[in-house]
Amino acid sequence: MTKYLYDIPLPQARLIFEEALKAAGKAGILGSEEVPLNEHALGRVLSIPIWARLSSPHYHASAMDGYAVHSDTTGLASPASPIELLIGTQAAYVDTGDPLPAWFDAVIPIEDIEPVTETVVDSEKPLKMIRIRAAVTPWSHVRTMGEDIVATQLVLPAGHILRPVDLGAIAASGHASITVARKPRVAILPTGTELVPVGQPVKAGDIIEFNSIVLASQVIGWGAEATRYPITGDDFELICQRVMDAAREHDLILLNAGSSAGSEDFSAQVVEKLGELLVHGIAVRPGHPVILGMIGKKPIQIPIIGVPGYPVSAILTGEIFVEPLISNWMGKSPQTPMTMKATLTRKVTSPAGDDDYMRLAVGRVGEKVLAAPLSRGAGVITSMVRADGITILPRGIQGLPAGSEVEVNLYRHPNEIENTIFAIGSHDITIDILAQFLAEKKRRLISANVGSMGGLIAISRGECHLAGSHLLDPESGEYNVKYVKEIITNLPVKIITLVGRQQGLLVAKGNPKQISSLQDLTRKDVAYINRQSGAGTRVLLDYHLRLSGILSDRIRGYHNEEYTHLGVAAAIASERADCGLGIEAAAQALGLDFIPLYQERYDLVIPITYYESQLLHPLLDLLWNIDFKNSVASLPGYNIDSMGKIIL
Amino acid sequence: MTKYLYDIPLPQARLIFEEALKAAGKAGILGSEEVPLNEHALGRVLSIPIWARLSSPHYHASAMDGYAVHSDTTGLASPASPIELLIGTQAAYVDTGDPLPAWFDAVIPIEDIEPVTETVVDSEKPLKMIRIRAAVTPWSHVRTMGEDIVATQLVLPAGHILRPVDLGAIAASGHASITVARKPRVAILPTGTELVPVGQPVKAGDIIEFNSIVLASQVIGWGAEATRYPITGDDFELICQRVMDAAREHDLILLNAGSSAGSEDFSAQVVEKLGELLVHGIAVRPGHPVILGMIGKKPIQIPIIGVPGYPVSAILTGEIFVEPLISNWMGKSPQTPMTMKATLTRKVTSPAGDDDYMRLAVGRVGEKVLAAPLSRGAGVITSMVRADGITILPRGIQGLPAGSEVEVNLYRHPNEIENTIFAIGSHDITIDILAQFLAEKKRRLISANVGSMGGLIAISRGECHLAGSHLLDPESGEYNVKYVKEIITNLPVKIITLVGRQQGLLVAKGNPKQISSLQDLTRKDVAYINRQSGAGTRVLLDYHLRLSGILSDRIRGYHNEEYTHLGVAAAIASERADCGLGIEAAAQALGLDFIPLYQERYDLVIPITYYESQLLHPLLDLLWNIDFKNSVASLPGYNIDSMGKIIL
Repeated sequence: MTKYLYDIPLPQARLIFEEALKAAGKAGILGSEEVPLNEHALGRVLSIPIWARLSSPHYHASAMDGYAVHSDTTGLASPASPIELLIGTQAAYVDTGDPLPAWFDAVIPIEDIEPVTETVVDSEKPLKMIRIRAAVTPWSHVRTMGEDIVATQLVLPAGHILRPVDLGAIAASGHASITVARKPRVAILPTGTELVPVGQPVKAGDIIEFNSIVLASQVIGWGAEATRYPITGDDFELICQRVMDAAREHDLILLNAGSSAGSEDFSAQVVEKLGELLVHGIAVRPGHPVILGMIGKKPIQIPIIGVPGYPVSAILTGEIFVEPLISNWMGKSPQTPMTMKATLTRKVTSPAGDDDYMRLAVGRVGEKVLAAPLSRGAGVITSMVRADGITILPRGIQGLPAGSEVEVNLYRHPNEIENTIFAIGSHDITIDILAQFLAEKKRRLISANVGSMGGLIAISRGECHLAGSHLLDPESGEYNVKYVKEIITNLPVKIITLVGRQQGLLVAKGNPKQISSLQDLTRKDVAYINRQSGAGTRVLLDYHLRLSGILSDRIRGYHNEEYTHLGVAAAIASERADCGLGIEAAAQALGLDFIPLYQERYDLVIPITYYESQLLHPLLDLLWNIDFKNSVASLPGYNIDSMGKIIL
Repeated sequence: MTKYLYDIPLPQARLIFEEALKAAGKAGILGSEEVPLNEHALGRVLSIPIWARLSSPHYHASAMDGYAVHSDTTGLASPASPIELLIGTQAAYVDTGDPLPAWFDAVIPIEDIEPVTETVVDSEKPLKMIRIRAAVTPWSHVRTMGEDIVATQLVLPAGHILRPVDLGAIAASGHASITVARKPRVAILPTGTELVPVGQPVKAGDIIEFNSIVLASQVIGWGAEATRYPITGDDFELICQRVMDAAREHDLILLNAGSSAGSEDFSAQVVEKLGELLVHGIAVRPGHPVILGMIGKKPIQIPIIGVPGYPVSAILTGEIFVEPLISNWMGKSPQTPMTMKATLTRKVTSPAGDDDYMRLAVGRVGEKVLAAPLSRGAGVITSMVRADGITILPRGIQGLPAGSEVEVNLYRHPNEIENTIFAIGSHDITIDILAQFLAEKKRRLISANVGSMGGLIAISRGECHLAGSHLLDPESGEYNVKYVKEIITNLPVKIITLVGRQQGLLVAKGNPKQISSLQDLTRKDVAYINRQSGAGTRVLLDYHLRLSGILSDRIRGYHNEEYTHLGVAAAIASERADCGLGIEAAAQALGLDFIPLYQERYDLVIPITYYESQLLHPLLDLLWNIDFKNSVASLPGYNIDSMGKIIL
């Protein structure tokens, strides 16, 4: 009841934290350690610069296999008049890397020497000679001492992150050990009575505890060490105990979840009891119930971050607060992402009081780099998996219209973004399988599910490479062609069949309500779950309702809409509804029963430009690939007879 | 004597190797292993796609702390006429993440609820109520089952490299373990009688063995496991033995050095004896004596790569052959570097028969991105340390003129390149110290040493941000001003003093030839080593020779030139010469004696545009930084009295 959540602006929160770290003597490098120079030093950060102790080469070295000579003795040699040099006094054989014998100043490569001849003066000791036909300049084919590194020069500055080549240069300059920043030790404490560890069976209300895995791997990726503690229940005393334990052996504590102001949120109280609560609540979204504090009494304090429980909030808290702290403690610059400008595909709104971290799928479609906003939910971890980058809508901005240019902080290499196929339209599980097969062909397929109609509109706007569509024309009984011609008037497209599939009614296991046809939808005891308007399945329903003379008013739940087949299945599985029209694969996915009703065609609509592009080439190939076809054919209710058939 | 070195074009060599790998069944993923899902899976490559086993959330979950209700019961609530709902039957308290009780379909956040009231009907059991002033829509503040992940959907494709967020998504989708590509095991065998391990004292002819460290850390960085073997001498039988040993437990052998055709180069013979020599010599530079082969009898063979001994060749062999092989074995795409277009600062030549991997320093100077070619020597590892990228001059091209545009494969993040200060001109050790201090200020200073005059010319061409210069005007006795005015006529510049320093004669320890003044340079027994023309030190020498009436013809070695103070010192230390004009720090660096003669001024010349830029701001600040000044003042022969003084 004494907990308050303020929304402090991010820069201010950072400042407060930095001041507290300074006061605790934890604003710079935590410490250094000497480590042997070997492959395990890769990625460590130098805390002392490397000045060369030794030159490299540390002697005049032959750069070739050949004969060392003094250049003065070769002056008269020419193609027409070769000269001979006595091996021993005037020439000496050297391998690459051998030191130049004293008073020699050049090497003649073995391939420029004519076969060695013998001059017998004393039969016991025949004199051996080399014959050459060109003069050499001083120091030719010699790596002179210090050519690479001169003793005392700066080899690498402090703060440098060691790459393979650096380890070589440090060794060459005469060092056998290096002084690097000690790795910060980070404790990660998952708390929450509702948490269960990965691998255990779950029941309603259980939450699989994976934030600690994500945070630990972030921390390891940033160069620090991570300790994952076991789950602690929502027990104030127990959490205090664990935090105290962790504080003894770590440089930073990440206390996960319980950072908000709910009845079982103890983090703020824990920090207040054990030290100093600096910040509770920061104006960033997602992630705002972040806690910043210090454990222990001044001046001996260690920082603690109360990390929100929603996975996206947790990940962003890591990126915003933990990464810069770890980098600073190791004496390196915080990571700066690559950036890219992109055009928003749709309007977005944003809370005016917060810095809003918006996840985006990014792809190049023709000349434009498009950024499609992904789910804004803090619990939707797949939005982070799918995110190609993030744009920050700063405080004070309430949104941006479609077509706005945004600066994207990239999570991916720009090359990957160039190899991305952007699909918008109706979703089908075959699209997932396509994505899987394309990954092996170095293509990334990302799809936004907005229904068939939405996909055709996206094509006409130049916002995607292809759209999946299964729109029935009620007059002709034909699929897609009429809609494509009506909606996409500005560019030529191909329509290619991906798959034939069964549509039918999804019902609970065992079909407890004995539903068997569309007629049953009008029963008082039956709740229907519908697809959004514009979805092919919705068009299909409406077509058959009209054929059967059923009025939609008479169907309970007709106006409750889901955006995917799986969404419909989930609604039925969770008893939100009794039945819905959809595909058999979705029924099977969630253990539902399926009443087959109609066979329909699911096509890909592709602008000719992309149809003929290198980008889509592997996708079109797959439509004739036997492994892909078999994968799809093995799905219940799918028919691959027409796969790859060109409709238009 | 049976060894031949052919120069096979790179694509052909790759093809031969790939065919042999295919025949040995080693062209794809080597194998998979199941690992537990935890932070140690970071960076591993999925070899089986992840399909969701569980939905996330796997139940309808409250998205807020508040009261679960059925939306139907809230329909009549409005600000003016609140309604009350009975806790228990009409409303139930839920924390964030709690499952929604059956038949409820929405959550009202705690902050939208007016204080709970009690209606005492039965004093034993007072009824508790909540009061609300707004209707709620179905499923508001609820994370519906499958909102994030629906069971059966594709979470991640095979071939995906696991990031922290992926581990979370995999856990959320119901997996406790994953199947990833097994890490390839790479054996690294350093050979050569001349090699000594890091940390041992060296004598002339000894080479510090660090290629195995560089190769091992490359291999580890690419995701494989590396075994470094001890050094094997140039002993054919012993090398064969080691290779056989390594072949038993590894997937790839890197046999370092001995890959050329010299008298002690056994690698090709070893491969021929133990298996199949596929390629000996590839038309790439540096690196051409590469060996590709297979150890063992068909079809049970493991690949071996004979890696050249020069460090730059070794590193590039790793990048060209080892990285793609490891990536392929793990089922991921080979690394593709970021690229950037840049303008060559000088003409380069290239062997027409080879693909020439040219190392470049890259920086932005004004509007131009400039690429300065670095040392081409295969032994110059610092050229790889300093390289910001590589451009490949393909076979058939014999060179490029200055000003050519090249495509650079970057080794660094483009952000770093934007933060790079490009210095061209006279070198001074103070520039190294500046670089060290600037690294802490997030600036990279790279310098090309071409002498004072060369630096002024580079400024006038817009090819650098600053030039170090110490050019004496023989008429006025003043430094730099006259030269700057003569050479840089096209843009306004500032001249700022960096340091005053002592110039004098560098001589061997103990001054065995008793040299004490310029007069001694004309002695028959004294060999001089000079600086290149255009160097400030050369101008200084010539000025004083004229003052003293000494003719340069009378100085033995006057025409032997070095490009740096340290180069001059190295020439004397290695007895190539007896004395040379230079600075005391260079003498001290190599243990030479120093005869002080003149005090001179070393200035920085900076175009006004850069003088006022954010980029150079930290550098100019350092001229007033006490730590920096102390570092410089502690150098022998340096004087910081005028540091930071503006001359022009």
